[in-house]
Amino acid sequence: MIHTIRWGSNCIYIIDQRRLPQKKEWLVCRSLQDVITAVREMAIRGAPAIGVAAAMGLALGSHSIKTEKYGTFRRRFLEMAQQMKLARPTAANLRWAVERMIRIVERMHDNNVKEIKEAIRKESQIILEKDIEINLKIGQNGLGLIPDGATILTHCNAGALATGGYGTALGVIRAAYEAGKNIHVIVDETRPLLQGVRLTAFELMEENIPVTVIVDSAAGYLMRKKMIDLVITGADRIALNGDMANKIGSYQLAVIAKENKIPFYVAAPISTFDPDLKNGDLIPIEEREPKEVISFAGHLIGPEGVDAFNPAFDITPAKYISAIITEKGVIKPPYRRSIRNLFDTEDYSGT
Amino acid sequence: MIHTIRWGSNCIYIIDQRRLPQKKEWLVCRSLQDVITAVREMAIRGAPAIGVAAAMGLALGSHSIKTEKYGTFRRRFLEMAQQMKLARPTAANLRWAVERMIRIVERMHDNNVKEIKEAIRKESQIILEKDIEINLKIGQNGLGLIPDGATILTHCNAGALATGGYGTALGVIRAAYEAGKNIHVIVDETRPLLQGVRLTAFELMEENIPVTVIVDSAAGYLMRKKMIDLVITGADRIALNGDMANKIGSYQLAVIAKENKIPFYVAAPISTFDPDLKNGDLIPIEEREPKEVISFAGHLIGPEGVDAFNPAFDITPAKYISAIITEKGVIKPPYRRSIRNLFDTEDYSGT
Repeated sequence: MIHTIRWGSNCIYIIDQRRLPQKKEWLVCRSLQDVITAVREMAIRGAPAIGVAAAMGLALGSHSIKTEKYGTFRRRFLEMAQQMKLARPTAANLRWAVERMIRIVERMHDNNVKEIKEAIRKESQIILEKDIEINLKIGQNGLGLIPDGATILTHCNAGALATGGYGTALGVIRAAYEAGKNIHVIVDETRPLLQGVRLTAFELMEENIPVTVIVDSAAGYLMRKKMIDLVITGADRIALNGDMANKIGSYQLAVIAKENKIPFYVAAPISTFDPDLKNGDLIPIEEREPKEVISFAGHLIGPEGVDAFNPAFDITPAKYISAIITEKGVIKPPYRRSIRNLFDTEDYSGT
Repeated sequence: MIHTIRWGSNCIYIIDQRRLPQKKEWLVCRSLQDVITAVREMAIRGAPAIGVAAAMGLALGSHSIKTEKYGTFRRRFLEMAQQMKLARPTAANLRWAVERMIRIVERMHDNNVKEIKEAIRKESQIILEKDIEINLKIGQNGLGLIPDGATILTHCNAGALATGGYGTALGVIRAAYEAGKNIHVIVDETRPLLQGVRLTAFELMEENIPVTVIVDSAAGYLMRKKMIDLVITGADRIALNGDMANKIGSYQLAVIAKENKIPFYVAAPISTFDPDLKNGDLIPIEEREPKEVISFAGHLIGPEGVDAFNPAFDITPAKYISAIITEKGVIKPPYRRSIRNLFDTEDYSGT
């Protein structure tokens, strides 16, 4: 299995996803700022992976706080946490992980700073390992939704590279394949950053799972031709009514799927749900630089000086989502109730 | 105005659209085979432009038939016509133009070969010039559908470069701009060959019409956010029930537009209608090489050896199309009747 992120002795190694699949290069992060830059520039991406990176980044950052005093340490740590939170706005998991780290610091007010730093580092490793466990559970829980012989459309990359390992949407696909189901995956390339053709196709080919790439615009053609049995994506944030933010293009896939009576599933851990948001239109949508759209590999593809608009995510209203697959089970409409039940039985803080 | 294709003395000049907008290079075609290659490799593309190229290509080809005998000339010409027809399968205009040229040859059985060659060449020039006139009429006919202040989404390139000149969908946009309407055009990049960002953005910027590029996947986001007032595209073939084939991705734009109560218009000349086809599912859909998908601006983007599927067009069922703008007026549902009326009043042969 591909490892997206791991600890070195005084650093964090991150596989540089901007260069995959042509080059496998490990980016060495030696400071919180290095991790923030890696997240912002999408050397590491995918909501759960960003959560893991945030936790590990704060653990790395905390070691640079040179004080023995709890008050000073806490103040500096909260500043770092705030910086880390701002790296990218849409994924819920980033904030979730940062707040989890903050709770450790708050709780350990009677411990010495060295012990707190150790606890933080340990916690970041737990978040990484638990994320893989969670994905394995998501895979098992989604298994029943994947018929034998299914052709499955996925968007962007919700695989091992988007998580601690194994993947959410690709976790379900992996689980189906490992269970001996005969499946074929269609992945759209996912412009502008091409995570579908670069990362998802790469992950699936590494495991010999049959995969075919299409351009984003071809999904509707295949759905109308009944060449797709189901769609499955990850999510960056899910509101309490089941609306979700995910990679730009997810919304239109969901609309076309519904129009063609094809189920549209979302696979995501509980940490992707935002218990503060009533609906998806409250989710902040990141707008990235126009140059991602109008250039490729350093080559300008459009006319000199052309304007571009580059929203990185969109909102898929709950009415288009057939089910949400979590580590606690498959959630079905009506989502308001089923998501509330989830939080009633789950300690969201995860501590 | 950009000229897509024009006569030289013993050759045809075609602007090589594969290299636009970075390079403006004229491709010199000296034989029918050169023209077929240019059409097949999409140095020239767009249904009406392909029609013009086919007519001019046959005129060029006919000059290489070294005989004085009508029977021999006719036989060789029909062979050439058949080759030309097969260059690309989806656009109706290709066949329309070829058949129009064949009719000249059939009708002139009492003339000598030199006269026939001259008539053919003249006819090809008429097709080119009439195409520009037709587009100007389409522009005027579509004017009433474009509100002042509209933000208009278009897909691929249905501009001067896709036609003899002026354009179909972009003809309507040009006409609205020339009429003093305050409009803003959103164009999606149109993978795999990027006609939107390379050609449409280029044409609009040359005329100072405000344009913003998005990735194909972002169209749904903008429509749901009410940032688009109407969608307008060209067409490659329209069946008798109003179903149409157009660049891959048109179908999904039409579905999302309908879902968001945004009008979806098609602009096309009568030569794009296929009077032999009852519905769109009978239209042949060209599948092009996978390499167009898995490479981007000449660079391999996916893993080595990855499979790809590359349908170049899709079918938009008539129920998603708000109106079809032709040189004879705006056609509205029910299309079966309105298209039949069109052919009752129009001499489809155009001769």
